[in-house]
Formats: sequence, C-alpha cells, structure tokens
Amino acid sequence: MPMSLSELSAPPERVDIQLGDRSYPILIGAGLLDDSRSFAAVPASATALIVSNTTVAPLYAKALQAALAGRFRAVHLLELPDGEVHKNLQTLNLIFDELLGRGSDRKTVLFALGGGVVGDMTGFAAASYMRGVPFVQVPTTLLAQVDSSVGGKTAINHPLGKNMIGAFYQPQLVVCDLGTLQTLPPRELSAGLAEVIKYGPIHDMAFLDWIEANIDALVAREPAALAYAVKRSCEIKALVVGQDERESGLRAILNFGHTFGHAIESGLGYGEWLHGEAVGCGMVMAARLSQRLGGVDAAFVERLTRLIERAGLPIVGPALGADRYLELMRVDKKSEAGEIRFVVIDRPGSAVVRSAPDALVREVLAQSCAQQ
Amino acid sequence: MPMSLSELSAPPERVDIQLGDRSYPILIGAGLLDDSRSFAAVPASATALIVSNTTVAPLYAKALQAALAGRFRAVHLLELPDGEVHKNLQTLNLIFDELLGRGSDRKTVLFALGGGVVGDMTGFAAASYMRGVPFVQVPTTLLAQVDSSVGGKTAINHPLGKNMIGAFYQPQLVVCDLGTLQTLPPRELSAGLAEVIKYGPIHDMAFLDWIEANIDALVAREPAALAYAVKRSCEIKALVVGQDERESGLRAILNFGHTFGHAIESGLGYGEWLHGEAVGCGMVMAARLSQRLGGVDAAFVERLTRLIERAGLPIVGPALGADRYLELMRVDKKSEAGEIRFVVIDRPGSAVVRSAPDALVREVLAQSCAQQ
Repeated sequence: MPMSLSELSAPPERVDIQLGDRSYPILIGAGLLDDSRSFAAVPASATALIVSNTTVAPLYAKALQAALAGRFRAVHLLELPDGEVHKNLQTLNLIFDELLGRGSDRKTVLFALGGGVVGDMTGFAAASYMRGVPFVQVPTTLLAQVDSSVGGKTAINHPLGKNMIGAFYQPQLVVCDLGTLQTLPPRELSAGLAEVIKYGPIHDMAFLDWIEANIDALVAREPAALAYAVKRSCEIKALVVGQDERESGLRAILNFGHTFGHAIESGLGYGEWLHGEAVGCGMVMAARLSQRLGGVDAAFVERLTRLIERAGLPIVGPALGADRYLELMRVDKKSEAGEIRFVVIDRPGSAVVRSAPDALVREVLAQSCAQQ
Repeated sequence: MPMSLSELSAPPERVDIQLGDRSYPILIGAGLLDDSRSFAAVPASATALIVSNTTVAPLYAKALQAALAGRFRAVHLLELPDGEVHKNLQTLNLIFDELLGRGSDRKTVLFALGGGVVGDMTGFAAASYMRGVPFVQVPTTLLAQVDSSVGGKTAINHPLGKNMIGAFYQPQLVVCDLGTLQTLPPRELSAGLAEVIKYGPIHDMAFLDWIEANIDALVAREPAALAYAVKRSCEIKALVVGQDERESGLRAILNFGHTFGHAIESGLGYGEWLHGEAVGCGMVMAARLSQRLGGVDAAFVERLTRLIERAGLPIVGPALGADRYLELMRVDKKSEAGEIRFVVIDRPGSAVVRSAPDALVREVLAQSCAQQ
C-alpha cells in the first residue's frame, strides 16, 4: 500500500499574515485538509457550512467534513455550480438562502473549499451575512493558494465588470493542501503559475531565478517545489498587502498583467480563458509596455515571455482589436476618471502604477495580439 | 416673501463621531440640504450619484443636486421604488447597474437622500461597489436622522429575515436637514420618536424627562425641539457605538424593543407596520419583560407606555400568537444557537442583554397583544 501524502510530508509550512486584530495564519503542506489539527485555530461554534462546487466537492468535501466533525455539532455542505460565469449575485444568494434556511447564527463559520470563484463568493457571503461571520479558506487551486490566500479581497462579477461588487474581508485561517493540486487540470495549474511568476518581476528577482530553475518541477507538480512556490508567493503578497490593506496605492502593483488580462477575460466573455491565462498573456503585454517606457530591456521581456510560455500559458492575445481593448481597460476598477492605470516594471524587481499614452498601448497590442 | 428656513435658522449643530480614521461629522439644522457649505467636507471627485426614492426625490433631489453642482462635474440621480418591501437584492442591484452603466470609478461619491431604507441600501452599495466608495447620508426622516446617522450599519432584507445581508460601513458625512421633517407623514414622525424615546430608558433618564416635557412640541414639529432631540439621540448613540463599533456586546442595548419589534415586522410582513411603530410597541413589551425580571417597577412601565402612546405609536401588539412570536425571535440576528437575546432595563437608565424563560415571554405577549 502506498504511503499517503501526509505520511510523506514534513510539518506544514506557515506564513503569518500580520494585520493587527485581523491577523491570521496560512498553513501550507500535503494532507492538511483531512487533518483536524489544521483547524485548531478556528473559533468554536455550533455549526459550519462548507461552500464548494460540483467539481471539487465530490473530491474533498467528505474529508473536510470528517476533519471538522470534532469541532462543530453540524457541518453542512453547499455545492455551487462550477465556473466564473456563476460568480454573480444569483449564486451568492444561494449561500444566503442556505444560511437562512438553516437558521444560521452569526457565529456560524463558513469554509470556502475550492478555487478563486468559490473563495471570492464565500468570502463576500461571510463578509455580508449578518454583516460578518467568520470564514476559513481551503483553496484547492494553485491560483487560489498563491493569490486569494492573502489580501482579503472578496467579490462577485457584474455583467458590466469583473469583481465590481465585494468587500475587503479577512479569513480566520487559510489551509493550502498541496495534495489538492495533484487533481488540478493542467490548464489550471499553468494559470496558477502565472501568479507565481508575477511576484518575481514586481518584487524579487531572486525568486524569478528560482522559478526559472524549477519551472519543470513545478509543471510536474513536485510537492517540494510547489510548497516553496506557494510559501514565497504568500510571503511577498503579505509584504505588499501589509503596507496597504485597502489598496490605496502600493498594493496595486500586485495587478501586474491584470489590466490587459481583465480586458482579455471580459472581451472574450468570462470563463473563455482562465484568469491566470489572461494574466500570463497580460504580463507579456505589460512587460512590453514597460520596455517602451524605459523600465526594462528587450532581454528582460524575452526572458519573462519564455518563462510564461514554459509554464504552459498563452503569450499571444486574442484579436479583440485595439479599440475594444482600450474601451474595456477604461472601465477597469483601477482606472480613474477614464484614465487607464497600468502596472509597469520600472526596473527588474520593482513595479509602479502609471498611465501610458494610447499610442504606446496600441503598439504593444499590435505586437502582442493575434491578427483579426 | 417669506423667509426661508435657512435664513431663520442658527448655524448647524454638530456631533462628531470619533472612530479613528473613519471619524465623521453629523450636521443638524434647518436648510442644510440646499446649502453647498454643508458639503464642504466631502472628498472632491468627478461624479456623484444621489440615490433616493420616488417619494423623496421630487421634494428634495433638485435642491441637493444644485447644492452639489459646484463640487462635482456631474451629479446623477437614481430613484428607487419607495418602501421596505423593496429593500432587497434586486433593488440593490439597480444601484450597481446605474454605477456601472455610467462607468463610475472608485472615487464616485454616493449620496443617500431619503429614510432608513434608502440609507441602508445606498450604504451597502457604497460598501460593496468596487469594495468601497465614499458615501454621504442625507436622512430625510426622523428615524433615519436619529438612528441611521450613527453606527455604520447598512443592510438589505432577505425573504427569511430583516437586515440579514449587509456591512458595517461609515459615511464621510451626515447632513440632517430638519426642514425635511416638515413634509414627513405623521406616522413616520411618530416612528422616529420611538427611537428618540428609546435612548432615555437605556442610557439617560434626564433625556427621558426632557422628552416627556417636550413630547407635544416634538409631535408639533417645533424646530428647536427637533434639533435637540436629534442631537442628543446622536450623541447617546455615538457614546455607545464608540465603545463597540462592530456590535460585539454593549452596542446591542441599542436594540431595546427591537427583538419584539422585528418579530412584529416580520410576522405581519415588512411594511405593514413601520419599523419605528414596531419598535415602539416592542419597547412596551421589553419594559414589561424588564419588570418581570426585576429591573424596573410597574410605575416605570406605565410611564414609558404612556409616553409611547402620546408619541402616536401603537402599544398593543398584533395577534400573531405566542408560538409564532417565539419562532420569529429565534431567527433574529441577536439570537445565538437558538437562544433568544432580549435587551432589558436592569435599572432606569441602564440596559443589558440577556435571555429570558419562554414562560415569562409568553406572559408578556399575552398581556401585550391583541386577542386572536
């Protein structure tokens, strides 16, 4: 009989997010999800509700319910439909229906078991239900582990824009079980690697070197490589967010590749490309814009582009047309009074937020997109 | 030509709500709404959206738009349907549709022009739109002026419970124009007086004496009496909320009369009784429960009941049946693990939150409700 991942693994890695009375730990390791010790920090309460989706729940919900059974009298499960297209007000309301249908009080703990969509919706539901109940993130995708674990951003989409309705709301605990990444479809693994790669150019060139040296191990899902990638990503994000919890300035550098990326997602219709795929391609565009603005050289752009490609991500944007790209970017949350804000690399390992002349953006789009 | 209210009036009264970096002023006076100086503290921005309803907007929206015209390039107006029955997810979404339809950025300032329903929905929309945009309360009912001005509570209703979905979110400024109270229907004035009266028994018996001495002036809408009632109510609420912004304990005493009151509102269907009417009647019930628990004597209950009656409020509860009352109170936000929490007077001028034996509650209901 093969040893389980948890028997093979070391004690969990831990990253502490310091936010005063909203501080919380992130645990990172294999076999955490079905180990009741992972949840020792969760406030005691009568009931818990696991919110998951129809893809993830059959794989992991039973194990999580079992791990929580000792801490809660009742552990209920709600399966939402899977996919970004369901990240809306109607699906959010299913969580409220479930909570109120069970007479859940304000000590009920919500567990988000799934990727970013489940995490974003469950977090916003937790922020809003009775004006705030505790919640725990159990992210099962690489993207959610390295991105949603830190920052407290929760949201749903609106037909006219992505993540337009939400709250800043911190979890009590994040449990990143690396075992769940073994069942992740390859496209989703690559999408997660886009956000891992991002932390290099904006903050830590040594981490970019490490990713380059280990990209094959990451794509092959080697647990030790994944553990370090998740841990270092969370640490860098925590450093940035710790200085700017409510996204008034600095934190915006985490959106490297996202202005272009959101336009791709929105222009194709949510769900056509994965968020991480759009961000991967968006980083190529943002790097090219950075080069035109004098922050990096052609070799840097080439290096980053190759790494994104090796991660299994698209490096050519869809043919939406430059006008449509610009229109979509103008309604981005980061825009102000109609001016598009881009995150650009001003020198390797450092990013800033700035506007850019439309003409330069059009050059980048012409260079980076498929022909119409 | 008659003098305007603003020419007749003194400079506005001011109550400062101290909440660290979320502090804000409440201005109280006649003629404030159409005076641009009232809004000097509002952050400068390109656009403002006034959210009002079909009853209030025709009376005051133009004046507010004119007062804001100097500070914003564009001041838009959205009229929601009027009434508690519309305080739901669908109506909330009308605000998001409007904001996104106009490409509103995260510096857009929302103005809530109306009563508690408009304030609650606009506040929640402001808390959630792009995870938080600035907003200003311009409450036009006495209830909203003395209750919604302080505390940062925003919410919408769910078919299974009132105010179940919302956020704690502070405005930048509250402008209480006493002139708007002159157009208030008599029932709504009385409903507001219920919350004014509330502050006496829970915190300040001298204020209760003052209300008793001035109840006729208040019902007759004399501006000086209204100004003092609004100011003192906001001060007391600020004292309590300042010690417990997120409602973990002390703040719950502000819900005196609300456990019974919410059951009345919910049992009859939202909108049948006004919130303040239900709270007025609920205070009679809560006072009787307090007497049974030994906190006050019969004379106190009689005195409070007469004052509530003189304010034009109902003092006999609807015949829902005791079982239904208890069932409705068990899903109240204040309940924990199925135990109903009541705010009771433990001595005149002081309140506590506690549970009570069902048998005592049934006695109170039998004494306080119409016969089935």
